[in-house]
This record gives sequence, C-alpha cells and structure tokens, in this order.
Amino acid sequence: MAGSFFKGRFLSLFDYKTEKYIIAKNKKVGVLYRLIQLSIIGYIIGWVFVSKKGYQETDTAIQSSVVTKLKGVSVTNTSESGRLVWGPEDYVIPPQGEAVLFVVTNFLETPNQKLGYCAESPKVLDGHCRDDEDCEEEKMVIAGNGIKSGRCLRKDENSTGTCEIYGWCPIERKFKPRKPLLLNAENFTIYIKNFILFPKFQFSKSNVLETSDDSFLKKCRFDEQLYPYCPIFRLGDITRRAGYNFQDMATFGGSIGILIEWDCDLDKGYSNCNPHYHFTRLDVSNNSISTGFNFRHTRYFKNAAGETYRSLFKVYGVRFNIMVHGKAGMFSIIPTAINVGSGLALMGAGAFFCDMVLLYLMKKSNSYRERKFEGPK
Amino acid sequence: MAGSFFKGRFLSLFDYKTEKYIIAKNKKVGVLYRLIQLSIIGYIIGWVFVSKKGYQETDTAIQSSVVTKLKGVSVTNTSESGRLVWGPEDYVIPPQGEAVLFVVTNFLETPNQKLGYCAESPKVLDGHCRDDEDCEEEKMVIAGNGIKSGRCLRKDENSTGTCEIYGWCPIERKFKPRKPLLLNAENFTIYIKNFILFPKFQFSKSNVLETSDDSFLKKCRFDEQLYPYCPIFRLGDITRRAGYNFQDMATFGGSIGILIEWDCDLDKGYSNCNPHYHFTRLDVSNNSISTGFNFRHTRYFKNAAGETYRSLFKVYGVRFNIMVHGKAGMFSIIPTAINVGSGLALMGAGAFFCDMVLLYLMKKSNSYRERKFEGPK
Amino acid sequence: MAGSFFKGRFLSLFDYKTEKYIIAKNKKVGVLYRLIQLSIIGYIIGWVFVSKKGYQETDTAIQSSVVTKLKGVSVTNTSESGRLVWGPEDYVIPPQGEAVLFVVTNFLETPNQKLGYCAESPKVLDGHCRDDEDCEEEKMVIAGNGIKSGRCLRKDENSTGTCEIYGWCPIERKFKPRKPLLLNAENFTIYIKNFILFPKFQFSKSNVLETSDDSFLKKCRFDEQLYPYCPIFRLGDITRRAGYNFQDMATFGGSIGILIEWDCDLDKGYSNCNPHYHFTRLDVSNNSISTGFNFRHTRYFKNAAGETYRSLFKVYGVRFNIMVHGKAGMFSIIPTAINVGSGLALMGAGAFFCDMVLLYLMKKSNSYRERKFEGPK
Repeated sequence: MAGSFFKGRFLSLFDYKTEKYIIAKNKKVGVLYRLIQLSIIGYIIGWVFVSKKGYQETDTAIQSSVVTKLKGVSVTNTSESGRLVWGPEDYVIPPQGEAVLFVVTNFLETPNQKLGYCAESPKVLDGHCRDDEDCEEEKMVIAGNGIKSGRCLRKDENSTGTCEIYGWCPIERKFKPRKPLLLNAENFTIYIKNFILFPKFQFSKSNVLETSDDSFLKKCRFDEQLYPYCPIFRLGDITRRAGYNFQDMATFGGSIGILIEWDCDLDKGYSNCNPHYHFTRLDVSNNSISTGFNFRHTRYFKNAAGETYRSLFKVYGVRFNIMVHGKAGMFSIIPTAINVGSGLALMGAGAFFCDMVLLYLMKKSNSYRERKFEGPK
Repeated sequence: MAGSFFKGRFLSLFDYKTEKYIIAKNKKVGVLYRLIQLSIIGYIIGWVFVSKKGYQETDTAIQSSVVTKLKGVSVTNTSESGRLVWGPEDYVIPPQGEAVLFVVTNFLETPNQKLGYCAESPKVLDGHCRDDEDCEEEKMVIAGNGIKSGRCLRKDENSTGTCEIYGWCPIERKFKPRKPLLLNAENFTIYIKNFILFPKFQFSKSNVLETSDDSFLKKCRFDEQLYPYCPIFRLGDITRRAGYNFQDMATFGGSIGILIEWDCDLDKGYSNCNPHYHFTRLDVSNNSISTGFNFRHTRYFKNAAGETYRSLFKVYGVRFNIMVHGKAGMFSIIPTAINVGSGLALMGAGAFFCDMVLLYLMKKSNSYRERKFEGPK
Repeated sequence: MAGSFFKGRFLSLFDYKTEKYIIAKNKKVGVLYRLIQLSIIGYIIGWVFVSKKGYQETDTAIQSSVVTKLKGVSVTNTSESGRLVWGPEDYVIPPQGEAVLFVVTNFLETPNQKLGYCAESPKVLDGHCRDDEDCEEEKMVIAGNGIKSGRCLRKDENSTGTCEIYGWCPIERKFKPRKPLLLNAENFTIYIKNFILFPKFQFSKSNVLETSDDSFLKKCRFDEQLYPYCPIFRLGDITRRAGYNFQDMATFGGSIGILIEWDCDLDKGYSNCNPHYHFTRLDVSNNSISTGFNFRHTRYFKNAAGETYRSLFKVYGVRFNIMVHGKAGMFSIIPTAINVGSGLALMGAGAFFCDMVLLYLMKKSNSYRERKFEGPK
C-alpha cells in the first residue's frame, strides 16, 4: 500500500525500527545504509555548518591601511663614498611608509658623473667594436649607457675595444657584491601599523595594542605568544621566519612577502579577531632562488657654473611586500535558512540515492524491497 | 493507488482544489502549507532572481586605472625654512599621480645637516649615558641617529647626558605640532580620473564626463546629484564626508580611504553604470584614532668643495588611498538555466519536506494522509 | 502497484526498454524525455566536471611578486635643457622596479626657478585682473602657482593682465607637445620578473626560463610560440599588442595594463602551468581616449650662498600597470564528493521535473501515465 512507501522513505533516514529489520535481514545493506546516512548528516553538520560556518554572513571586502616605519642606522665606509651614515630616510625606498618598501643593504656609488665622452662598459654586447665602423655615429648602444660618437677605443690595433659614447661619464664600474655593506641592516626594526575595516559589519580594528603605555611600543618586539599586539619585527627575524638567512639575501637582494591574515568570527567577540602573520620569500621558483634584486637611482647636483653632475647609486636590498587578507563572519538568518534548506534538499536526494542503490544495484535486495513497499507487518 | 501519490505531491505545490480540501479539514496544516510554498517561491524569485540577479553572468575581474592630480598652492613661513611656496610638485608624495598618495600638511625642516659629531637626541633611550663607558665606540645607537664615538656629553658631572654620535648633524629638534603649517591644504582639490574595463563584456567606462566643454573640468566640483561626473574633490570635503575635521587630521596626519564602486547592470544600458564614492577614515580602530602619520625624506646638496650636505624633512600629512571595486552583470542563458534548474530542485525538496512535516510531525494529519494517498474521491 | 513507481522513476533516466515503449506510443514525449536526460547529464559532466573542473580543489589566493627592469637609452636636445642622455634611472619613475611604473617619453624642463615675484600664468582663470583690486594681497591664486602680491601686471591700461604672484619664478611656459622627445622610447625593453606562489599547494613558479645560459636573457625577446619564458618586451610591441601606436601614446601620455594570468591545472604537472600575457590600454572609455597623462616633479639645488633653486620637470609618458591574476586547481576528494552528490540531487530533481511535465503539461500523456504507474506488462 502506497502510504508505506513514503513512510519507508522517510524512515530510511530516521526510523530505527525499520533499519533494525533491514540489518537483521541483510547486514551489508544495513551497513551501507548507515554509512550513507552518516556521511550526509556529517557533511551538513561538519562541513557546511562547522567547517564553512554556513550560518554566518561573511564580508570579504576588507578595507585596509598599512603604514610602515623603520628604525635603525648603519655606517658604511667605501672608497667612492667615504664614511656614510645611513638612516631610514636613506635606506628605505620610497620613504613614505608604504606597504611595498625596499631596504637598501648593499650599494655602489658612482659619484660626480657628468655628460661627456667615454668608453662604453665592456659588459654591453652592442658596445664591442673592432674599428670605428662598428660604432656608427649618433646610434644608441642597445641596452647600453649612451649614444655612439663614432670612435672605437682599443688598447692596441688587434684587440677588441668598446665604442666611445656620449653619456654620463665615468661609466659605473663592475661590481660583484661579496657581502652586504650595511652590516647592521639585520638589526633594523620595522613597525607595521595595520588598520582594517569590514564595511558590512562596521567593524574596525588595528594590529597595535590599545594601550596608554607609550614606552611599550618603544621597547617591545613581536612574539606570537607574549606580544601578539606588538607589530615590531627585526628584519633578521623576518627572513629567518621565511626560512632564509638575512646576510645571504642582503648581498644580492631579494623579496619577502609579509601576509597579515584576519580571519574573524565576530560572533566570538572583538578580542577574538586577531591578526596572523605569515612570512614567505617571494623570489623563489621551484626551490631555486633568483639572482637578486637591484636598481639604480640618482642624485642630481649643480656646480657654481650651473653645470649638472650627479651621483649614480646601484642599490641591492630586500623588498618587503605587506599584503592584508581577511574575512569576517557573523550570524545571519538568511544564509542559515538557505543552508538548512539546501541541506534538507541534499538529504532528500541522498535518501533517493539510497533507495536506488538498494533497489537496483544490490542483488540480494529482495527482502528490502518487500519491506520497503509493504511496510512492517 | 500509486498514481495519486504523485498527483498529490505535485498538487501540494500547485493544485488549489486539494489545498482547499486540506484547509477545510485542518486549518493549521493548511497555513503551514501555504507558508512553505510562499517561502520557497519567494526565495527563488526574490532572492535568487531579483536580489542576486541569478539570470546574469557576472564579471568581477574589473581592470582599473587611477590617475590623480592635485591643484592648489600654500605658503609657509618658518624660522628654519623661511618663506616657502608649496605646489603639488612638493606636497604630493610621490608626485606621479598614483592611487596611493600623501599630501603634506605639516613639516619640520632640519637644513644643512652634515656628517660629523654631535650629541644624540635625548628622546632616544639607548643614547642616554652617565659616563663614557656607556657610549662604547663604534656601536650603533638602537633606534637612534648614528654611531657612538665613545664620549658621553653631559652638562655637569652628576646629570644624565647623551652619547656623542657620528651622524648627520645637527640632529632634528623636538617638534610637537600644534596646527598645520600648510593652512590652505583644506582647499586643495584632487582630480581622480578612473578608467575601468570589464574584460568579459569588453565594457569600458570612465568616471569623467564625456564632454567637449574644456572649461567644465576647470570649474566644477563633485556633487552626487548635480555633477556626478565631475570627480574633483576639495580635500576638506573628503574628510568631512568621512566624518572628520580636516584641520585635526592635518596637524598629526592620518589616512583616508576613497572607495570607488562600480556596480553595473549592463542590461540597463551604458548610462546606468555609474561610480559611487565612499569615504572612510582608515587609521581608526575601535573608534579610537591612532597617533598620526609622518615620515622623513631628504634633499641632498653638494657645496663647491664637493662636500655633501642635506635637508631633512619630517612631514606630517594625509594619505589618500583610492580603491576601485566593481562588478558587472549581463543576461546570459547559462546561469539562468542553472538557477532555474536548482530552483526547481529546491522546490521538489521543499515539497518533500512539506510531506514529511505533514505526515509525521503533525499529530492530526490523518485526514491529510488519507487525502494524499487516496486522492479526492 | 507501488514498486513500479519507483522503478519507473529510476527507469525514466536509465532504462531503455521503458523509453522505447514511450517513444513508440508518443514520439513528442519521447523526444522531450531524451532532451531533458541529455541536458542534465550534459550539465553535470560537461559543465560541472569538464568546464568548471568540479573535482578539483582550487586556490585563488595567489601570492605574487613583480620586479621590473628597463633597458635603453635616449638622447634629447632642447633649448632649456641642452643635450641630455636619459637612462632608466631617469626615465623610470619610481626607479625601484615596481609593478606600477611610469616611463617618461616627453618632457618640459623649467630650469633655475627661484622663489620671487613674477606674473601668474595667463592659463589660470583666477589670476586674470583688470586692476590691482582684483589681486588682493596674500590671497592664493585658485589652481595657480603662488600667492598674490597685490599688483596687477598689464601691458597697457586697457588690456586684461595677470596678477603678480610670489612663487617659483619663472613660471612654467605653455607647452603643447607635438611629438615625443625621447624618440627611442619605443625601443626600450622591459624585463618583467614575476614569481608566484599558491600557498594551499605550496606551488611556486616564475615566468623566467630556468636556464644556466646567462646570455639568453641578454638577447631574447618575448614570443608566445618561441620564447614564452623570455619575459622581455619592447615598449613599442606592448602598445602594438594593446592595439595602439606607441608614438601617439608617447606624445601626450597614456596608461597600459599588462595582465599576467596563471590558470594552472596542477594535475597536469609543473610544466603545464604557464603565464599568459594580456595587454590593454587602460585610459580608454567608451572607445574615446583621454587627453593624456602627465605630472610634474622637481630637483632642488642650492647655490654657493645657500639659496635654494630648482628645476621643474613636466613629464609626459606611459604608465604600465602590471597585474597578476591566477588560480590553481588540484584533484581533491571533498569537492568531488560534493559535486557528485549535488549532481545526483539535481538528477533526482530533473527526473521529478520530467514526470511533472509528462503527467500534467502534455495532453496526450495518458499512455505514459498508464505505463509509468503500471509498468510494462
């Protein structure tokens, strides 16, 4: 009789009497039955509600502001530049405290460059020449430093020389860094202020301790357990956490990513929404490290006669890239209703699937079939 | 007879005859029935199709280009710097019109710094000393300005002094800003050009009026009602819209987020895809404002003898961070089909749920049960 | 009899015997039946599994580091600046190899500006005057270059003049660019190093060929077919790929977006995860190009007497904005199970939908109805 069909279907998930009968008749079918039941309920409760927090409305459009400030000073002594003191205003490029910043750890200064004529660097392939015809006048040197003057400068008639160019002379000398000149860079500290706002919930927080003790931020260092709200890091500690040695990175330069993650369950209250810091080296590909990171910048001067001259700096260093990710969740009736609804839908489909399997795929399912469509006598 | 089961199930959502019978027999069941029906239909039509626009294909991978340009000029008169005129080339850092920019509103210049020996700032804890042994030679001052020379400079024998350092001298003096020096900064205007592209639909638009009237953009100011396509904002208006006073922010510095939102329904046509501007203060955490925003930068000079000296600027100001979010939707047959399909699936599951509730959870459901499985006589 | 209902329902998707009977009795119903079956199976296999790769876990939180380096040199010769050689340290702003960079292609230098008194530019509307009363002392010129001194400078009594201002004099002259001064900018090359990391799979890769041949990267040029791992582009090629002429863009300036897309199927192995480059012009709105891109920056000097003077540069150029998108997928049992489950649920719902259509919407469905609920005799 038809009524029992429906009952059977419903019972297939909840009525233990029927199940006991099935299990008594056919143990394999019973076990499968239970497994399917458990997996569906487990999926809905475990995955949708506990793991994915399906009862919460989420906001992933985090708005974030990052301000960085470095402290520390280093002294270098080179033949070109003399004895120099480097403060944050010099070694942080750009200096305005942005989320992407470069810290100079090594450099080569070429002081007092003037526009004039000199030999192209032998490193530039297109600047090589055997005679003046190789150096066509007014032609640029490809990937070079100036414009050819038409003369080939050689030591003697048989050697390969380099074209004379019009450019900033003297040309930068060859430089193979051996160790970082700013020895103290490892001990520089970076203070990362991060403010976040989840606009949907009007929730804002900062990664800095809200304290009235001014001197705390002057002395503290970050420690996940002790001082999670003191976002002041030694540069050497950052590279160590990323798995690399600072002195190695500092010689040729590199790139470090600092990921600040805010995964906030706002149902648990303000104090449970904490930032987590992750450090990774970014210039690594398939476990091989790239050949470094450097660029050139200049300082222009004018002498008393109004003539321009400049200092060219080739700087090596570590680039820090601070990225902020985050999402916040809060209980809301709409996603709860939708997830309960689609959970029940899946449950219905699961029961339907159980029936299909038991009716048609299991050979010895006759006893189930009878039971299913006749109901317990 | 089995045929009626199916009919009943189908009728449970659409056939009013059966429902009338149910309602006549059991009013509570009838009301629940109707409520479930309405909520499912309401969910599909209201939520999936009207609110979430389930019939549209969406593109959230907005490509955006932001160009900013500031106008305005201010005059300052300080004892260190004399009378200075500040144009955008000076007070916008960096000057290249990026989406993240800093506007100087307050500053302290320390002109004519040279490398040499002088006393460390008393603000630096590690620079305090009682005698020369506290100032170990060649050691860096932690969070200080130079390298210790080995001498402790004191007024008299009993007082606490500061170590002599080798660094850029004179050291920057103490500075507690009282009011912004660039008084006129409030009246500076920022012109925000924003171009967007939704690559999936090849749809591009700008937030600037497409006009042939060149003088319009020279005079207009943004107004949501009157001039939504004139993206020129007074800085003072931006902070006011964010809920803060410009002069307060300008003294110590701060951070403002400008969010441009493009939420475009391309089915409604080109002219209905408009930007919306939101302004929030970003350096606020749990309603308490951080202690400001400043950084230092330098200008290097050389004298006739080739010696380097510099001006150190400590600048306070407001950082503007322009963020562009957006999504576009356009009718497409695939998401429509998928949503109709899963809507019908949910409808089936809903009917199944109704049956379960009515058959087993309601005690007085006998009349429904009979009706359900026998059909109307 | 009830058992056959279930059989019928199940058969409606898989049993060809029943279907043959239906098709024999009613061809239209049979065709609809097949179409619905096919579309559901097609949706699940084609859309969910093949097109959307529903069996994979995906990671869209790509972490990326972009380093850029330009090469090339250009010579300009102007009356104000004389003969200048431009290297990357000059024409790339900022010079530190970031993902957003500006390449100078055209410029106007205003050398030797000093603070003093001179006439406001006639371009500034607020600087126009008819007599001294129009130039109120100590008032800023709106969108101008300085502070009014109180005098109106006119050629003769009847003409309109401009207010005298205190500011950086001389004022920048009018400049209507005709062609780019850095003629060679088209041949500059940009080397884009991009490192990516998918944190969920700990998969990192770079867009640069992993080779021991150092000279390869000195000579190669990007080619999608031949050298996909040589990310060195001629600037002229980039604009050509974006659909625009470099010389046109270079005169007034513009903005180019370079999108690097990593769409990686990690089941296919390391070597199948390749970057794809897309080039678009970003300052285009509804097919009309904006009026260019320029900004001003300064270089400050001091003369022997300690007086400050400066060079003001108005630079035009192309801004390159390198964006990295990406997602990676890898087989995982959880999404596979979820998608198979919801696929089956949809299949059940589809069968239910078929039944509804066939039972109630088709008029001549009596034969089906009998067949459905009685089963084949």
